[in-house]
Amino acid sequence: MNGLLTDLYELTMAAGYFAAGKEQETGTFEFTLRRLPRNREFVVVAGLHRAVEYLLNLSFEASEIEYLRGLPNFRNAPEGFWKYLADFRFTGDVFAVPEGTILYGGEPVMNVRAPLIEAQIPETYLLSAISFETIIATKAARIVHEAQGREVVEFGTRRAHSPEAGVLGARAAYIGGCAGTSNALAGYKYGIPVMGTAAHSWIMAFETESQAFAELQKLLGDNTVQLIDTYDSAAGARAVGRLGKPLWGVRLDSGDFSRLSRQVRRILDDAGLQDAKIMVSGDLDEVRIAEIVETGAPIDAFGVGTELATSADAPSMGSIYKLVEIERAESVRYTAKHSPDKSTIPGAKQLFRYPDYDLLALQSECADGAEALLKPVIIGGNLLEPLPSARQIRDRVHWPTKPRRLEHSKALESLVARV
Amino acid sequence: MNGLLTDLYELTMAAGYFAAGKEQETGTFEFTLRRLPRNREFVVVAGLHRAVEYLLNLSFEASEIEYLRGLPNFRNAPEGFWKYLADFRFTGDVFAVPEGTILYGGEPVMNVRAPLIEAQIPETYLLSAISFETIIATKAARIVHEAQGREVVEFGTRRAHSPEAGVLGARAAYIGGCAGTSNALAGYKYGIPVMGTAAHSWIMAFETESQAFAELQKLLGDNTVQLIDTYDSAAGARAVGRLGKPLWGVRLDSGDFSRLSRQVRRILDDAGLQDAKIMVSGDLDEVRIAEIVETGAPIDAFGVGTELATSADAPSMGSIYKLVEIERAESVRYTAKHSPDKSTIPGAKQLFRYPDYDLLALQSECADGAEALLKPVIIGGNLLEPLPSARQIRDRVHWPTKPRRLEHSKALESLVARV
Repeated sequence: MNGLLTDLYELTMAAGYFAAGKEQETGTFEFTLRRLPRNREFVVVAGLHRAVEYLLNLSFEASEIEYLRGLPNFRNAPEGFWKYLADFRFTGDVFAVPEGTILYGGEPVMNVRAPLIEAQIPETYLLSAISFETIIATKAARIVHEAQGREVVEFGTRRAHSPEAGVLGARAAYIGGCAGTSNALAGYKYGIPVMGTAAHSWIMAFETESQAFAELQKLLGDNTVQLIDTYDSAAGARAVGRLGKPLWGVRLDSGDFSRLSRQVRRILDDAGLQDAKIMVSGDLDEVRIAEIVETGAPIDAFGVGTELATSADAPSMGSIYKLVEIERAESVRYTAKHSPDKSTIPGAKQLFRYPDYDLLALQSECADGAEALLKPVIIGGNLLEPLPSARQIRDRVHWPTKPRRLEHSKALESLVARV
Repeated sequence: MNGLLTDLYELTMAAGYFAAGKEQETGTFEFTLRRLPRNREFVVVAGLHRAVEYLLNLSFEASEIEYLRGLPNFRNAPEGFWKYLADFRFTGDVFAVPEGTILYGGEPVMNVRAPLIEAQIPETYLLSAISFETIIATKAARIVHEAQGREVVEFGTRRAHSPEAGVLGARAAYIGGCAGTSNALAGYKYGIPVMGTAAHSWIMAFETESQAFAELQKLLGDNTVQLIDTYDSAAGARAVGRLGKPLWGVRLDSGDFSRLSRQVRRILDDAGLQDAKIMVSGDLDEVRIAEIVETGAPIDAFGVGTELATSADAPSMGSIYKLVEIERAESVRYTAKHSPDKSTIPGAKQLFRYPDYDLLALQSECADGAEALLKPVIIGGNLLEPLPSARQIRDRVHWPTKPRRLEHSKALESLVARV
């Protein structure tokens, strides 16, 4: 499954490694956060669940192999390579930081140690799967922080880069601290709280706004959230006031939220609906939310879509997946690239977290009084233990109290000097 | 299939429409490009293939229905609604502009006319599927334009918002004018040219760079593209020169491309490799490419990843899906929302393209000497005719010669004044 869901060059290299007799060599690749995304001081790692699902099921179907055989790049591939691909399974080891871990620039996210071809092919998928959920979880953490305790609900599937990315983004946003999502499939698949009541089309589908409000209240009872800005927000709020309870509250989706929320609050209070909540949505991000919160507007919850679902100010992350060592028979060779601004650090590594700083060390090193963040996930091609749920991961996210410095161990420095 | 891949409120509204006896009413929803993405003067529409696939297969599995029944929002949903969902199929009509069409702000992309619930549920999926491929095809068109005839290859799956989004983005980038993609699955699924030879790990996996080059040449022959910046680009180019033919060319992935490409060109020419091409990749977008082309650098092809795969400067598009009319028995009611900055235009429409301008008119109008851009795609729940291939769509994209103005027909203006 998913064998072709990678860059062609991973497969060209696979054929080349096979032709050069390197399929018995063992490579260790390191997935590293080369640099933080712009506007970010840390990331919340997410997406490991997809990496695991992919590696445990990675294989090639006969029709996919036929397709590759027909491409000019494989004209000289040895016949044995096709048999190799047909039998392909990932048999290696994966160490990774748990989802929900806070990481900083220059830190490793994952090590993949496997026969060279098995470790090479997953590069493209792993980079995409983990980087995407990580940027969304990170964006969510920033937004939730600025909301200062008010609930933030993820509303962004319609702006996500495909509906399926919306499902994954909903999970990541929840891990980053959102209270829930509008995405029904994310709720079903990942056990995330789902929220959502009605759109403008609901209001327009009835002859009058009041009729639409009454019908929604009949259906939803205490969970009713009335969308009041279809025609005129103040008039909408008054209509909600006339209907009374049961009601959770109202939603504003346009206009000047600071001013409107105060007006709507007065209308609801005057109608005896002091418990009714006010939610706002529409073009929100952490900057806008901070401004609104600053004004003291009586807003209880935020629905955030576009900016969260695309991490619009930082829609990608400079992550890399590089060969750091290669083993043949009894010998190990450490590898690094020296390209300008894109050099890499050789050797399989461990990342130790001390109270005040992080230490990048060789995998063979131990540390006293520090947590080893790269933990075994897949051993010999099998999942070591069940992965935590989205809820468990979310509970593990702790906002960093301050920036951390990254130090290198002496043994690592000495290796770098030699390669 | 995919019944839950939508916002929960679409399903809450579905239950509410059912409870209110509105499942026999027919709604027409319009998918509109409310405003152009930032930095864009037009969009290249893409993604319709996914919309069609979704609508033709939309259904709910028993376990999904069970999940919904357990949610508090559906506590009061009528029992008949669950039977309705279990039997759900899309039976409506879809008119849409063909993929590859150039559109401008305020123009409709698609009309969905169906029993109200059937037209409501797809909102979230359609917005995401079409908006995503459209922003990528548009970004590609901009990049290809600035490359002024040099080939542009899409390299971005690793930065896409999920590996699956990478496959869709590759298709969209091809429609927008890219020569091909690095994504193997996109090649397999959509018949797009695929490209890719080797990464830095290939170079590092061999004891010496020269050995890596020789092994790649053995495998790829005339298709060999040597990546020369792992250690030192000039030394890499000289090693390629010593090897000689067969060779397609070299790739630079870091450094000052204008300077390096000139140096590498001289080295290759001196080695008698005047036919060898130079490709560059790494942090490219249309602005950077325009700058490089401006310097007259001897570059034959560009590989573009991150900025293209995420449309980084405009990662979303303000598209909307709004109820424009509703039919019950023999009567039609036209609908619009009046929210500040977010008002909509009532009535099912047609978009006519004249040589000099576009005309937004009612669906019942005809026009002389203009192309009706919204064409029937799905009628009565069935696909009218096979969709064109990515290649056919790509051939249809014509760069606009100048901005177009959008006029409204008199009949439309008169309707707007009444609603």
